[in-house]
Amino acid sequence: MIPNVAESNTEKAYALLKADAEKILKLIKVQMDNLTMPQCPLYEEVLDTQMFGLSREIDFAVRLNLVSEEEGKQLIDSLERQLNLLHEAAQRT
Amino acid sequence: MIPNVAESNTEKAYALLKADAEKILKLIKVQMDNLTMPQCPLYEEVLDTQMFGLSREIDFAVRLNLVSEEEGKQLIDSLERQLNLLHEAAQRT
Repeated sequence: MIPNVAESNTEKAYALLKADAEKILKLIKVQMDNLTMPQCPLYEEVLDTQMFGLSREIDFAVRLNLVSEEEGKQLIDSLERQLNLLHEAAQRT
Repeated sequence: MIPNVAESNTEKAYALLKADAEKILKLIKVQMDNLTMPQCPLYEEVLDTQMFGLSREIDFAVRLNLVSEEEGKQLIDSLERQLNLLHEAAQRT
């Protein structure tokens, strides 16, 4: 029973971080669709702040051994790749 | 053994959050002593960013049931009280 609880905590930590990364992606997508352009300083600021918040969460989870450094790095890398795709798509339209 | 690990994880989570709060306090203290005044926008921005980062960490820990909402709130409240004391001391000199 207890090992399952411990295991589910690391799974939950990863799932929460992934969900937070997806929330950022969604927020940026909504911003792009409706409000501002990627060149807008406000957009940059929102993105920087959100990425900083996520990086603090990930760093915290890594320090607690809930996710590995590699997993944390992959979460950030994957989010950045998806944001780049969004940027490129926005510039094409 | 395993219950101890689980317990020590919540203790570690709280200790990490407390250490991060103290780091912010130290950073702000160094800033006040050496660089800028509380009225400076740069100071406000650094403080806002750091508080946002800490609040994301605490929120994450609460969602994982590593610390209670009450403990998280107390950490932020205590940090804000100490920052206010710093402000007041800086304005008196």
